[in-house]
Amino acid sequence: MKPPVLEPVVIVGTGLVGASVGLALTRAGLRVHLVDAVLSHALVAESLGAGTTQPADAARVRAVVVAVPPDALADAVAKALTTYPRAVVTDVGSVKGTVLGVLRGRGVALGRYVGSHPMAGSQHAGPLTARADLFAQRTWVVCPHDTATADAVLAVQELARTCGARVVSLGPAHHDEAVAQVSHVPQLVSSLVGCTLNDVPGEHLRLAGQGLRDVTRIAASDPALWRQIIGANREAVRAQLARVSDALDELLAALSLPPAESDAAVERIVAHGRAGVRLLPGKHGTSAAEFASVVVEIPDAPGALARLFADIDAAGVNVEDVAIEHDTLREVGWLSVGVDQARASELEAAMLAAGWTVRP
Amino acid sequence: MKPPVLEPVVIVGTGLVGASVGLALTRAGLRVHLVDAVLSHALVAESLGAGTTQPADAARVRAVVVAVPPDALADAVAKALTTYPRAVVTDVGSVKGTVLGVLRGRGVALGRYVGSHPMAGSQHAGPLTARADLFAQRTWVVCPHDTATADAVLAVQELARTCGARVVSLGPAHHDEAVAQVSHVPQLVSSLVGCTLNDVPGEHLRLAGQGLRDVTRIAASDPALWRQIIGANREAVRAQLARVSDALDELLAALSLPPAESDAAVERIVAHGRAGVRLLPGKHGTSAAEFASVVVEIPDAPGALARLFADIDAAGVNVEDVAIEHDTLREVGWLSVGVDQARASELEAAMLAAGWTVRP
Repeated sequence: MKPPVLEPVVIVGTGLVGASVGLALTRAGLRVHLVDAVLSHALVAESLGAGTTQPADAARVRAVVVAVPPDALADAVAKALTTYPRAVVTDVGSVKGTVLGVLRGRGVALGRYVGSHPMAGSQHAGPLTARADLFAQRTWVVCPHDTATADAVLAVQELARTCGARVVSLGPAHHDEAVAQVSHVPQLVSSLVGCTLNDVPGEHLRLAGQGLRDVTRIAASDPALWRQIIGANREAVRAQLARVSDALDELLAALSLPPAESDAAVERIVAHGRAGVRLLPGKHGTSAAEFASVVVEIPDAPGALARLFADIDAAGVNVEDVAIEHDTLREVGWLSVGVDQARASELEAAMLAAGWTVRP
Repeated sequence: MKPPVLEPVVIVGTGLVGASVGLALTRAGLRVHLVDAVLSHALVAESLGAGTTQPADAARVRAVVVAVPPDALADAVAKALTTYPRAVVTDVGSVKGTVLGVLRGRGVALGRYVGSHPMAGSQHAGPLTARADLFAQRTWVVCPHDTATADAVLAVQELARTCGARVVSLGPAHHDEAVAQVSHVPQLVSSLVGCTLNDVPGEHLRLAGQGLRDVTRIAASDPALWRQIIGANREAVRAQLARVSDALDELLAALSLPPAESDAAVERIVAHGRAGVRLLPGKHGTSAAEFASVVVEIPDAPGALARLFADIDAAGVNVEDVAIEHDTLREVGWLSVGVDQARASELEAAMLAAGWTVRP
């Protein structure tokens, strides 16, 4: 089968996501035209190498990527379908059901439209923060709807892959429920923690460590953008946020119990939270649980650990995690080395060959 | 005034924090002795260069750092005060009032004890993750109590400074309220978000981006450790967590309002959260607001931005932030460059010298 023809491509909206799509597609060798309501944004994106601000020949354009703020999406998609009569049109908005509903309500023919959502971004905005590899190894959700043509779906999938992303297909409503859980509710919780800092004395804020900074990093995001995103996904967000509220009520009740019961409940909740985090896929889509451990005895001798690490280095296997375990019966320590499952037997063999005791 | 004599130092407990203190003090030239209930931990710390596992001459020890789990702190501090009769004793526990209360209740003489709390750590535990620079530029709270001698307070402050930290003095109860706000409640909120992930289908978790990972990073922390920390600071944590709960209830109510009002409330809450985060001190104790902006016109010419960045690079001033502003009247773009206040005039002069238009 011939791959879908994607060029020339038009990108409407040259903020962080639009300009990054332009950089990625240009690097892949496609001709990209850049359009933005704010000319200086398009010029900045052009100067970064994201494409040209010269107008495209509308009749020849084969793909359009709409990357404008959420409130402007429906109008921009409708306009693109009219302006570029042969083009497949996608948008990269964070919520998929609302735009589709608005376009349906207006009676727009949607065969050539397939919404999508690259799961990449930043609390920074604007073309200056754009990067050609913003989507590399990231998930890009493509959301086919009931009347989308096969050609359109395949073209949008190909476009996402050309940007280096891994494609996942989900229906629009399904997508919106999922992003409420993994994106919108975490954003709002981060914002709520940020809100409490307004009442904390400055002297106390000097004690803030990396933990608070991580929890509140995305609270620095743009309020107007999030008004639009949450507004487009209000029901799913409310349902999911209510679950956080229930869990918080339970924790507050636990803190009023007698000490022993309270402590046990806190430990249970923190452990349950840790179990939840461990379900998140790792950097390359692997789950943390998919690492294998190679466990090596640490001899009771000076410098043993340094030699052990030197030999692990020499084995050339990337170490993902390390931990010490203590064998109280035999009074020896064990070093547990977490590595990619595919490399575990290789490391084990190298350790044995170097004379170390490996726990079977 | 002569600086306090700190060595030989004994470190009791060679996990991440204890071993890192050992590395920092050893690097500063002090003799450090390492003690741990689990011998292999002390041996690991020794092999990393954190000190020696040879026993100290107890009568000569001048400072003891107790870095054991929270539940074991009071016993270990009491034992250190007896074992090392000339030594100033500090602990590095996350909660200060509880240990003090327990020791007072037992009638222990506390003139030589001054609790402290380095604001540095990691979700990783154990000596293998120790680093000599763990405390560099970090805040280390020293908590003088009513009967601590001046010598003891000065010695503990000197010890923290020797590890590279910035010293802040707070009373024990004051400290505990502050860490409830900036550390304990953020931990529990992160854990609650982690809890909700247990009910999210795996297919949805594949959509998780960096935002969710940041919000839940500390949810991977040790449940047994946090049981002890929260248990020692239950009242302050409950009071602060109740404020988060109130804010969450308000947000949930807002999501049930008619769309326009709901959207306005969401934007207000996200903006308030952003304002709170901006109060957090920056990397070197400066607030984000303390950066100065140098604003340069972006000419409407090909490659202008690339040349502009090259000239900023050549000026040798570290860029902390960049943003594009658009002047709708004059139809030009402006590049706003955030730099350290002390360097702003230097960058401005360099830009003018290179022929750029700088907004006054």
